[in-house]
Amino acid sequence: MRALVKTSPGPGMELQDVPVPSLGPNDVLIRVLYAGVCGTDLHIWEWDAWAAGRLKPPVVIGHEFSGRIEALGPEAEAEAVLKIGDLVTAEGHIVCGHCLPCRTGNGHLCYRTRIIGVDRDGAFADFIAMPASNVIPLDGISPEIGAIMDPIGNAVHTVLEGNSVAGSTVFVLGCGPIGCFAVGVARAAGASQVIASDLNPTRLEIARAMGAHVTLDASREDVVARIREATGGEGVDLVCEMSGHPSGHAQAFAAARPGGRVNLLGTPSRTTEVNFARDVIFKGLTLYGVTGRKMYSTWNAMQRFLRTGQLDPRPVVTHRFPLEGIADAIRVIKEGAAGKVILEIGR
Amino acid sequence: MRALVKTSPGPGMELQDVPVPSLGPNDVLIRVLYAGVCGTDLHIWEWDAWAAGRLKPPVVIGHEFSGRIEALGPEAEAEAVLKIGDLVTAEGHIVCGHCLPCRTGNGHLCYRTRIIGVDRDGAFADFIAMPASNVIPLDGISPEIGAIMDPIGNAVHTVLEGNSVAGSTVFVLGCGPIGCFAVGVARAAGASQVIASDLNPTRLEIARAMGAHVTLDASREDVVARIREATGGEGVDLVCEMSGHPSGHAQAFAAARPGGRVNLLGTPSRTTEVNFARDVIFKGLTLYGVTGRKMYSTWNAMQRFLRTGQLDPRPVVTHRFPLEGIADAIRVIKEGAAGKVILEIGR
Amino acid sequence: MRALVKTSPGPGMELQDVPVPSLGPNDVLIRVLYAGVCGTDLHIWEWDAWAAGRLKPPVVIGHEFSGRIEALGPEAEAEAVLKIGDLVTAEGHIVCGHCLPCRTGNGHLCYRTRIIGVDRDGAFADFIAMPASNVIPLDGISPEIGAIMDPIGNAVHTVLEGNSVAGSTVFVLGCGPIGCFAVGVARAAGASQVIASDLNPTRLEIARAMGAHVTLDASREDVVARIREATGGEGVDLVCEMSGHPSGHAQAFAAARPGGRVNLLGTPSRTTEVNFARDVIFKGLTLYGVTGRKMYSTWNAMQRFLRTGQLDPRPVVTHRFPLEGIADAIRVIKEGAAGKVILEIGR
Amino acid sequence: MRALVKTSPGPGMELQDVPVPSLGPNDVLIRVLYAGVCGTDLHIWEWDAWAAGRLKPPVVIGHEFSGRIEALGPEAEAEAVLKIGDLVTAEGHIVCGHCLPCRTGNGHLCYRTRIIGVDRDGAFADFIAMPASNVIPLDGISPEIGAIMDPIGNAVHTVLEGNSVAGSTVFVLGCGPIGCFAVGVARAAGASQVIASDLNPTRLEIARAMGAHVTLDASREDVVARIREATGGEGVDLVCEMSGHPSGHAQAFAAARPGGRVNLLGTPSRTTEVNFARDVIFKGLTLYGVTGRKMYSTWNAMQRFLRTGQLDPRPVVTHRFPLEGIADAIRVIKEGAAGKVILEIGR
Repeated sequence: MRALVKTSPGPGMELQDVPVPSLGPNDVLIRVLYAGVCGTDLHIWEWDAWAAGRLKPPVVIGHEFSGRIEALGPEAEAEAVLKIGDLVTAEGHIVCGHCLPCRTGNGHLCYRTRIIGVDRDGAFADFIAMPASNVIPLDGISPEIGAIMDPIGNAVHTVLEGNSVAGSTVFVLGCGPIGCFAVGVARAAGASQVIASDLNPTRLEIARAMGAHVTLDASREDVVARIREATGGEGVDLVCEMSGHPSGHAQAFAAARPGGRVNLLGTPSRTTEVNFARDVIFKGLTLYGVTGRKMYSTWNAMQRFLRTGQLDPRPVVTHRFPLEGIADAIRVIKEGAAGKVILEIGR
Repeated sequence: MRALVKTSPGPGMELQDVPVPSLGPNDVLIRVLYAGVCGTDLHIWEWDAWAAGRLKPPVVIGHEFSGRIEALGPEAEAEAVLKIGDLVTAEGHIVCGHCLPCRTGNGHLCYRTRIIGVDRDGAFADFIAMPASNVIPLDGISPEIGAIMDPIGNAVHTVLEGNSVAGSTVFVLGCGPIGCFAVGVARAAGASQVIASDLNPTRLEIARAMGAHVTLDASREDVVARIREATGGEGVDLVCEMSGHPSGHAQAFAAARPGGRVNLLGTPSRTTEVNFARDVIFKGLTLYGVTGRKMYSTWNAMQRFLRTGQLDPRPVVTHRFPLEGIADAIRVIKEGAAGKVILEIGR
Repeated sequence: MRALVKTSPGPGMELQDVPVPSLGPNDVLIRVLYAGVCGTDLHIWEWDAWAAGRLKPPVVIGHEFSGRIEALGPEAEAEAVLKIGDLVTAEGHIVCGHCLPCRTGNGHLCYRTRIIGVDRDGAFADFIAMPASNVIPLDGISPEIGAIMDPIGNAVHTVLEGNSVAGSTVFVLGCGPIGCFAVGVARAAGASQVIASDLNPTRLEIARAMGAHVTLDASREDVVARIREATGGEGVDLVCEMSGHPSGHAQAFAAARPGGRVNLLGTPSRTTEVNFARDVIFKGLTLYGVTGRKMYSTWNAMQRFLRTGQLDPRPVVTHRFPLEGIADAIRVIKEGAAGKVILEIGR
Repeated sequence: MRALVKTSPGPGMELQDVPVPSLGPNDVLIRVLYAGVCGTDLHIWEWDAWAAGRLKPPVVIGHEFSGRIEALGPEAEAEAVLKIGDLVTAEGHIVCGHCLPCRTGNGHLCYRTRIIGVDRDGAFADFIAMPASNVIPLDGISPEIGAIMDPIGNAVHTVLEGNSVAGSTVFVLGCGPIGCFAVGVARAAGASQVIASDLNPTRLEIARAMGAHVTLDASREDVVARIREATGGEGVDLVCEMSGHPSGHAQAFAAARPGGRVNLLGTPSRTTEVNFARDVIFKGLTLYGVTGRKMYSTWNAMQRFLRTGQLDPRPVVTHRFPLEGIADAIRVIKEGAAGKVILEIGR
């Protein structure tokens, strides 16, 4: 089968012919239809410090995908839940089920997590094998959207963690694909006012298409002042920090109201100076670090939002390429003007 | 001033000329603009057992209202939060602030609650005096809607208590005014599917206007079977029990999914036989009894929903009468086909 | 191997020689050391309506046990978490991992639960095979206590569900083994006052040994009046209803304070008449039906309590029998004066 | 009456003869029996930048106290809850009751908070006037302990915010008086293991007396390594950060387990460099800023702990002085070896 493989340490990926993955007793073999390309894939392509420290080539890349079940291992078949022909996506974190986080509702923080396309073979290929317990039936969600439920799930986790956002004011700081999804999730979940900021006008346009009431161009506007103005001087109930920049953190803490919440998803590449007294303690703020998707309450909420059409993520998808177009896909992501980029792999 | 007074034990009310209420140091004098007529007022009019046991005539009736501030006691004025001319409504439960429920976020269950229009003079009058801390500025909500925020708040409390309803399935059992408001609240809060039932087709029509995805005529349909069908066989995440009938309770328990929740607002006049093993324990259900409005988180959420237009309660308002039309107002409520009934009192 | 088998519909069990269970790829073979005998086993022995409707003989009985790992299936071995020689117990509900309850933190309510000793072969035998994911390492907890972590877990689930019990008043209604464990759990979790009631003085003595501050003999005392007296007239924050009797329900609702909680574990054999208006709605109560143990937050808390000695369940264990003494074990349970009864099976 | 007054900008306080405070309609006049001296009082004495920016002399200092009710304003008297002769303490944050935090359970973050002894006259005096709603009856708690319920409440807020600590591992970082109280609160609330660190051996001794299972001398030991060792390599469920030092923050983040929580009470005087990616996001941590005491759920829990003796704060009290000994009280606090310091004012 075809697969995009990181064959050795260093930049790039190679389209290779590799064997179809073998199937353990609890596994499901899935023919990949679509796959999403993620910022993480860019890091892997470029072979940055994180990638060099984590990946052990050769490894098939890709962790966001949808597909059709082609075969089931004997235990997976005996469960009688999934069957050949089902259209599915999957949670890409394969977890142990035994450790303290797994045992207490935090499987996304499993001590032994293995991520597809990073720690084991991934989805930029004609087939992938996944444990049945990680597989999620699409049940009517289109396979193109199914391919990007991993990052939509990041947005759902970021928006829903904490108190109900129904009737809340939400500030989404950073309008990459996950930020734009977060705007749509906040609207679906009944937020009263959603404010989004970015430095890029194209991304702000997508945020508006996803339902942002107010969009702020952080290159030209005083974001915190505008947010106070838009919230009667109080600040917002929830900040979704998607930028990972120290200046984003400062804005996030200033924009949150006393007693509010900052959920941090954007991964910083350097440290941030924090004034804990002024920004966290005297304001009674709650900060929360977002990793992955809650297994599986995040997925359940997301499936409901997508099946009913409460959340329509399609405005975020800006580019589609075939599997062999990976270099172009990586390029448009690197240019910074893309929304979500999808690979069209199978049928 | 004019006031509708229960002058002595027994049915009816009298429109009388009474003195304008005097003002304590923490009080606010409010000119009443609109008032809502409630099922409770019907009980008081008819002087049923509950009314006979609780009211001590003479008392001015009416607990749902909006108005304009006319004067402030010295302490209320010194707070510098409310001012003459503000359009306001008010929480009608006047609580002690000292007891265990008051001290632990359950002021609506205060041991010393005094309800306006029941335990002290109410709002079917040209003026009412209220403690400043019970007064809620309308800040742009129309006074007509302001007059019915008490029952809308009952609906907000019923829908929002428990887990977030975003992405949930909600069954509203009973489509009187509060049930119809609950339909709208569930939609505003991001419910994925809202199912409403009643015996009366007019009320089901209002429920549809408020956003119910599915309406069920309980006089002709197998409600529980239809709900299972509409939820892939699982049952709903949340039942809002608004009927107060034993048969409603049975439907509520059967319609909730395992691990689901039943919030009970409808006040039964008799006991219900409950199969706790089958309906509560083996299903892992949570039941919750709804009294009043949480003080004041319910109000905060409601204000957000109303100010943004996420919740538009106007389809529920079916009748308007002048103060002297109280007998007609009581009659249309008793006939059972009315939505919300409003008295137009001042300007 | 030896096993206590319900060989055919009807009362009793037979000690038989049966094959050692075969091992699936995800399974662990455990040599049983101790097993607990439960009220459920009494129902199975007596072949009551519930048992007749649920069990399909032949089936090996017993769902509470501890043991030593003797062998692992290849997938369980590859996980490298459990190993031969580990002393373990196990969650006896084998769940699907795919259904809505399983996906949202309510695995104990799985639509496809199979319970050992009921729906598949159980632990009153020399060996049992269990899925690795159900197995819990004892890590220093004695095997005798390990054998009764299933019912201790019922108590942990009942006491911990809801708000923190630290600083709370808790009423344990019914002092069978799970009630007595609940007394100890409430103490371990920082309850300020634990009140226990029963009709049997021996059980009340065990409750006192487990740390009850107040014990009430429901055959002679006005339980609700005594509870009000002991709580400054307020009632308790949490009732753990362990009796399953309609009169217990009535006491539970009356004993809970406004805004309080009643967690129901005792399984009624008939219906209860509930005054929802007076007892639930106007009091703002929360009721919750307790099934099994939360998978696995209940287990995590229980392991902490047992390993530190915060909870010492040994006073509850009153009888020990060999495997062939099952008839005696059943008899002492039926007589109603026993605490926890344990079978000593292996070494 | 006697009062310790900050008479003008600059260091020190003066013992003066001033008028007994006048009483508003909602106020209660309290004869002060004992008062606690706090680090905040040291800042005020030394007239640091914070004090210079906030206080407007002349102002009577002191915000921790207990006393006996001497008189009630007419509204306070009409409430019929408090009465002359009651032994009481009080919440020192006087809040508006109208703003968003006040209306949503976060009164401790009120936009208009006025703190006694800082923004208005305080308790280092023979009498103080307090709004009745801030007054807390001691109901059997000794007046000496009543005088320090303000800082004990800080500890209760820090320990109880978040999930139940029953069965949890808790690390108290910094053993000043509030840290030592936090050790005792964690034990009272059922923590399985409480670890405390400080640089000062005397304070570690007090922490041990309050129930710490493990104490770590941060001047000599690798605190994070020792905590990992003591928790099977996982880290703790909850860190109570009491030091306010950047190095404390670094230890706190490293000592918390994945999915754990850091509640921050210690007020830093400078910024901290935070590695959000490594320390918060990938670990899924929750951080929370602690201000004051929750009004009044913190007080309710604290009263329960103190009345039952579950929490005995007396080992923390190391010094007692008369009102005129304030300079000595400030000196021993400044020397850093004191536990809690109390002024004996009235009888």
